[in-house]
Amino acid sequence: MKFLAHINVMPKAELLDPQGKVVVKNLPNIGIDGVTDVRIGKHITISLDAASADEAHDQVEMACSKLLANVIMESYDFVIEEL
Amino acid sequence: MKFLAHINVMPKAELLDPQGKVVVKNLPNIGIDGVTDVRIGKHITISLDAASADEAHDQVEMACSKLLANVIMESYDFVIEEL
Repeated sequence: MKFLAHINVMPKAELLDPQGKVVVKNLPNIGIDGVTDVRIGKHITISLDAASADEAHDQVEMACSKLLANVIMESYDFVIEEL
Repeated sequence: MKFLAHINVMPKAELLDPQGKVVVKNLPNIGIDGVTDVRIGKHITISLDAASADEAHDQVEMACSKLLANVIMESYDFVIEEL
């Protein structure tokens, strides 16, 4: 079975996000007012083959916690769709 | 009215994504087989005040096309929720 996982890895809420702060500061320069906060993380899509939805879930969970996210500073969530 | 926009900025499908290729190559080393493709982009959340949902949509669209995405190499999509 083929699956496609959509993963978001974001800096944890209690941490500063300097890249996001720069965007907040610069949006008024291009005419966009009213933005109060910007946070920038990663969006990752993974195509994988697995025997079942449960196996796909376990593999993606392991990929996130061991390789894709730094769990000290980042949180992640994902959804998996069957193709 | 307060809105929260969830934006995904991804490298276009026809472009190589070297960062994703490195992840595909390394996942077997941590025991994850069966991954055929990985693509890595940005996930951005924007909190903003706007007079209406339409105005919020226009502001986020402009932020994406003018600042957050390089439209030559990246595509973007977003959803906006009212808080």
